[in-house]
Amino acid sequence: MLINCVAYQDGKKLAEIPVEDISVYVSRPDCFVWVALKDAEPAELEEMKEEFDLHELAVEDARHGHQRPKIEEYGDSLFTVLHTVEVDGGELVVGEIDVFVGRNYVLSVRNRTARGFQDVRARCEREPELLKHGSGYVLYALMDAVVDRYFPVFDSLETELEEIESRIFSGGSTTRANIESLYDLKHKLMTLKHAAGPLLDATGKLFGGRVPQVCSGMSEYFRDVYDHLIRVNQNIDSMREMVTTATSVNLSLITLAENETTKRLAAYAALVAVPTMVAGVYGMNFKYMPELQWVWGYPYALALMVGIDVYLWFRFRKSGWL
Amino acid sequence: MLINCVAYQDGKKLAEIPVEDISVYVSRPDCFVWVALKDAEPAELEEMKEEFDLHELAVEDARHGHQRPKIEEYGDSLFTVLHTVEVDGGELVVGEIDVFVGRNYVLSVRNRTARGFQDVRARCEREPELLKHGSGYVLYALMDAVVDRYFPVFDSLETELEEIESRIFSGGSTTRANIESLYDLKHKLMTLKHAAGPLLDATGKLFGGRVPQVCSGMSEYFRDVYDHLIRVNQNIDSMREMVTTATSVNLSLITLAENETTKRLAAYAALVAVPTMVAGVYGMNFKYMPELQWVWGYPYALALMVGIDVYLWFRFRKSGWL
Amino acid sequence: MLINCVAYQDGKKLAEIPVEDISVYVSRPDCFVWVALKDAEPAELEEMKEEFDLHELAVEDARHGHQRPKIEEYGDSLFTVLHTVEVDGGELVVGEIDVFVGRNYVLSVRNRTARGFQDVRARCEREPELLKHGSGYVLYALMDAVVDRYFPVFDSLETELEEIESRIFSGGSTTRANIESLYDLKHKLMTLKHAAGPLLDATGKLFGGRVPQVCSGMSEYFRDVYDHLIRVNQNIDSMREMVTTATSVNLSLITLAENETTKRLAAYAALVAVPTMVAGVYGMNFKYMPELQWVWGYPYALALMVGIDVYLWFRFRKSGWL
Amino acid sequence: MLINCVAYQDGKKLAEIPVEDISVYVSRPDCFVWVALKDAEPAELEEMKEEFDLHELAVEDARHGHQRPKIEEYGDSLFTVLHTVEVDGGELVVGEIDVFVGRNYVLSVRNRTARGFQDVRARCEREPELLKHGSGYVLYALMDAVVDRYFPVFDSLETELEEIESRIFSGGSTTRANIESLYDLKHKLMTLKHAAGPLLDATGKLFGGRVPQVCSGMSEYFRDVYDHLIRVNQNIDSMREMVTTATSVNLSLITLAENETTKRLAAYAALVAVPTMVAGVYGMNFKYMPELQWVWGYPYALALMVGIDVYLWFRFRKSGWL
Amino acid sequence: MLINCVAYQDGKKLAEIPVEDISVYVSRPDCFVWVALKDAEPAELEEMKEEFDLHELAVEDARHGHQRPKIEEYGDSLFTVLHTVEVDGGELVVGEIDVFVGRNYVLSVRNRTARGFQDVRARCEREPELLKHGSGYVLYALMDAVVDRYFPVFDSLETELEEIESRIFSGGSTTRANIESLYDLKHKLMTLKHAAGPLLDATGKLFGGRVPQVCSGMSEYFRDVYDHLIRVNQNIDSMREMVTTATSVNLSLITLAENETTKRLAAYAALVAVPTMVAGVYGMNFKYMPELQWVWGYPYALALMVGIDVYLWFRFRKSGWL
Repeated sequence: MLINCVAYQDGKKLAEIPVEDISVYVSRPDCFVWVALKDAEPAELEEMKEEFDLHELAVEDARHGHQRPKIEEYGDSLFTVLHTVEVDGGELVVGEIDVFVGRNYVLSVRNRTARGFQDVRARCEREPELLKHGSGYVLYALMDAVVDRYFPVFDSLETELEEIESRIFSGGSTTRANIESLYDLKHKLMTLKHAAGPLLDATGKLFGGRVPQVCSGMSEYFRDVYDHLIRVNQNIDSMREMVTTATSVNLSLITLAENETTKRLAAYAALVAVPTMVAGVYGMNFKYMPELQWVWGYPYALALMVGIDVYLWFRFRKSGWL
Repeated sequence: MLINCVAYQDGKKLAEIPVEDISVYVSRPDCFVWVALKDAEPAELEEMKEEFDLHELAVEDARHGHQRPKIEEYGDSLFTVLHTVEVDGGELVVGEIDVFVGRNYVLSVRNRTARGFQDVRARCEREPELLKHGSGYVLYALMDAVVDRYFPVFDSLETELEEIESRIFSGGSTTRANIESLYDLKHKLMTLKHAAGPLLDATGKLFGGRVPQVCSGMSEYFRDVYDHLIRVNQNIDSMREMVTTATSVNLSLITLAENETTKRLAAYAALVAVPTMVAGVYGMNFKYMPELQWVWGYPYALALMVGIDVYLWFRFRKSGWL
Repeated sequence: MLINCVAYQDGKKLAEIPVEDISVYVSRPDCFVWVALKDAEPAELEEMKEEFDLHELAVEDARHGHQRPKIEEYGDSLFTVLHTVEVDGGELVVGEIDVFVGRNYVLSVRNRTARGFQDVRARCEREPELLKHGSGYVLYALMDAVVDRYFPVFDSLETELEEIESRIFSGGSTTRANIESLYDLKHKLMTLKHAAGPLLDATGKLFGGRVPQVCSGMSEYFRDVYDHLIRVNQNIDSMREMVTTATSVNLSLITLAENETTKRLAAYAALVAVPTMVAGVYGMNFKYMPELQWVWGYPYALALMVGIDVYLWFRFRKSGWL
Repeated sequence: MLINCVAYQDGKKLAEIPVEDISVYVSRPDCFVWVALKDAEPAELEEMKEEFDLHELAVEDARHGHQRPKIEEYGDSLFTVLHTVEVDGGELVVGEIDVFVGRNYVLSVRNRTARGFQDVRARCEREPELLKHGSGYVLYALMDAVVDRYFPVFDSLETELEEIESRIFSGGSTTRANIESLYDLKHKLMTLKHAAGPLLDATGKLFGGRVPQVCSGMSEYFRDVYDHLIRVNQNIDSMREMVTTATSVNLSLITLAENETTKRLAAYAALVAVPTMVAGVYGMNFKYMPELQWVWGYPYALALMVGIDVYLWFRFRKSGWL
Repeated sequence: MLINCVAYQDGKKLAEIPVEDISVYVSRPDCFVWVALKDAEPAELEEMKEEFDLHELAVEDARHGHQRPKIEEYGDSLFTVLHTVEVDGGELVVGEIDVFVGRNYVLSVRNRTARGFQDVRARCEREPELLKHGSGYVLYALMDAVVDRYFPVFDSLETELEEIESRIFSGGSTTRANIESLYDLKHKLMTLKHAAGPLLDATGKLFGGRVPQVCSGMSEYFRDVYDHLIRVNQNIDSMREMVTTATSVNLSLITLAENETTKRLAAYAALVAVPTMVAGVYGMNFKYMPELQWVWGYPYALALMVGIDVYLWFRFRKSGWL
């Protein structure tokens, strides 16, 4: 589905143009065209391939989808695959943005993403002095937007971890739910890592030594994106380590809880076993057992039982078994 | 066993040729020969060695089999070992494809694989404009096919993991079977990794800087294979990490289950121990025990036992021990 | 908030100058200006950007804060982000120092740090022969101060670990508190690592091969900082490994403690169960039980019970169960 | 002890020569000498040092033994240390082969190895067209033989692992023996790794870019050895990972077994505790307990006990506790 | 404290010289001075700094001590920090050797080491043909001595590990002491690694490509040191892995022991519980219980109890519970 198709000149919007006119504008040297598609049909991709003269393998990748994040050069043009990660009801949803960038065109195709990139276009149009850089700047703006959206996702995972940590250490629940949450969190971290990790490697090629033609003169900008990606990736790695630690800590706490349960049960068992023993003693059938003849023998026995239990109770209390 | 022996010119099939004529066609500059063998006999390999003038060490490797995946240059020609991985009744079966590629010949030998590569030949013959690239394109097509077949294998492992996960967290069975399945899955992942991992390193040499002669001009294609291999390998690594996590999570759940078992057993023990204590009390032989003389003493004692047990039952229920 | 704004010439302090005069001094070839801000307002940063002609992206990073430690070149000038780590009541507080360095200016902005860098300025002014090196030396002095302050933080973490270790092995408490302390310590180590780790990579670019203009001729100094950073990082990594080991050792000790608890409980249970069994025997209603008729039967039974318990007590004592 | 001392020319054996004549043959340009020693005495080494003009440090290494596998250049000659690994009664025995290779000599010294390298010499003499390559080919043949002998050792370890796995999962024995076997296997893997790992790094220098003079023109051969070494090393690494996994799986199974033991014990305990409770009830001394007066009261009570136990038995059976 | 101050020429000792004359000898082109200090005072270091014209940062490092092992170039001279590791009563003591090496001087300062380096000096003086190499050879000899002293330390740790292993598997003691020993061993390994690890990286710069002036022509020697360092480091890494494995194996054994304890306790419990049940049965008050009237009823009951217990004892014995 076509979202936008706009021609720009000197950093300023010329006009929304019909798809058929793309090739006209693309051939004008000082002008570039930015087309945005959403969940593109094969036919649309085929049309774009013709208009922009895209490479067969790149178009095929875009058609199939489910590529890993990457930046590939095809002659003078770039084919970029970015993954968006969105939080939807506690689950992470991975979308895909395929960006074809040539000297004077940008074609972005987004699939399975809830939120669009109209704000990126708006920001670019508000800053004509930057948009003058041409299609490379648009690529930067799109990458910057995708990467910046990783941070709130990461923050939500961090909040999850903190909640699990406080549940684990509150002592109330060292339970099945915590274990499942940690496992689930690990899954989500892997998902986010799969989006941000490969992109890090790819972005490193857009600044520094030899860079693709369309990105030249923009090293500072792509280095900035790279820097954000390093931050995301290092944060993810740290959190993965903490999740692993939390899992093993949780196991320690479960084992500890078992230990405490055992102690508590033993204490209760003692409170029952000792009176039973006393009762057993006075249930013996010896002919000569003075206590049995006492008028107060029975109350005395009961008092003995209760007395021992009270004493035990306090001892168990003191040593933390109850 | 010979499967095919076909000469191609300008991307089009010339003819099926007898093995003896191979050297004739190979010497024609604008023509190449593509021979496919299956579970080749030493004699057949020897014959091919003569026809194509293959290097001794490469032929020896093909004869012995059980090489690791690799791509080796012998002068102008390439010797490639690929591993196929096929699912057969829940088990992974590893096969081997040895491909000898020269400027104007391709010899592929497949061993221990159920599925052949006729579809690759068919696809190549349907795209004469690509097949014009010559033997390098055939190598690409074979590698692409082998690598593409890793994905469904990986998907089946992923399904296995998801089933184990849901069994683990369903709570019904934290058992021996899950542990064995996880261990088995780990084995399979190692098997797949052994096929895909070494190939990744090898493929990296077929594009980028200096590339072997027969692969020149096809960088985009081999980069595409490389890219798929990275994806497979990263997926395998992620899954290995998840399997490790799942194993340790399972241990936590087993320990937790033990804890819960202990609690439940203790609860049942209490339901038996307390009436026993009460019975012990009324089994004492004191001369003066008023209850013993009551007409309703016995029912009262029974009611006391049942009453305490009912009370305990509800308390245990409430605190989740039963 | 402006802290200082001083012009230097030939390694000696010229004068405190008003902000408006900065551009005057900056344009004098043999002179440099060192400005220190604290928790700078956007307006102040904007003013500095004008005076020093700073790059937009760097200023934006300083405005947003929460960058990872890094050293970036913008043309001839450097933008450096350092993290300070301070101990406040057992918690680690991370602050940020943004340093802009040009040929003849240094602008340092510190955020969220309790302790300032007046001592660095004082030290620089006491060593005019070194300060002659210009702005690069000031950068070194600031980095050196930040890195040196990591050591006492690390030492405090080391002390924490030693305390936990001695608590763990003292046997008195293999408890929840130790587990939580270890987890907490891990968190702190990650925090310190996040400050020191990225800085290590960045500092490596300031000596050796090609170095930024402002750092030239100071390789020995930056190598010294680098060396300290390696030490901090290796210490952190070692301690992380020891924390992991301590966690797993603690689990072993908890499991062992459980084992010992079980044995002790079993010993106590035996001390109750055996007399109960004896009492049960003498509670049987056989018509012909000689002991029941003995005058000393009851004392004998009690003595038997006590005797067996004393015997068991010593055996349990000897085998370490009690 | 001298094993062989033979001069070769044009790939063919000239003659067995006495040690004193070595320097004569070595000085002939088209000829090379291959000496094999076993558990060499210092005096023998000293003699060889003179004859071949070996480097002091290399000879010292050979004298001390216990070097790690390595390949070192001393001017035009190579000093190679290889480790043999032999299985002797279930234990791995590490031997050492020191090979000095010059343009026209090979001196091999083997220590602590049961099996010699006569077959390597025989193979070389059978293939004169290859032996023509000179001393470099002999080095290749020795390395190839050493590395090929790693494979059966690895296979024996693999068999061990499979036996342990089947013992672990057979359920019969999750015992001490399995744990010890796994630990022992880990030890053996480390031993094999210590032989094969360093050799991998060293071998990489014998082909590819600049290679030592004596190995020139033999890249395909050394690459083949390298390839085998990679295979051994990757197999070892995989098996180490599987051993680690097996260890942790075994722990899970032990914990699980404990859980099952607990349940079984609890079931048996119930089978004893419930009749005890019933007996306790009918041991009460109430004046009015109708059952006590029944003629069939005692059989009824016994039947009740047995009945309850039979019922419990079947329930425990069904739920898998017994 | 000054230990030695000797001038050498042509590899031979000239004379012990007073400190004041150092600069005289240093200025003679064919002569070098070797000064050894122990626990040097700041004043001594200051004096040396003057005599040898040492770099301020290097002297400061030597003054502060507690540097990590490193080799730094300051112009034509080298500053080397080595760590000695000595065993003292089961504990590892880390000392520090700072070596300043110039074209014609060596200054070594040792701190906190029990054993000196007089034997190194003696060895050098015994080999004048090697000492002719000058100050670089002295550096080699010192490094060689320090590194060679790591091996017995490592061997003592290996012995410790073997003792722990045999204690763990002897079954007698899976106890607290083993866990503590393993943890302690890990600490020691880290200590040794901290000495040997950084030195490995540093030594790599003293041979191969460009090397510092004072080390030129001695590549074989420094490569030899490097090789020993690799061996130490790989051994340490292997042992760290084995310690980790041993820790987890120990946990398995503790869990297993718990399992066995539980079984043994349950067996003993059964031996008490079953007679109690029998006693309970014959303690019932039914009017018609034929056994109660038997003359041999009581002995029969006791025999029943003992009989069942003997039977159980043998069954438990057979199944390994007792």
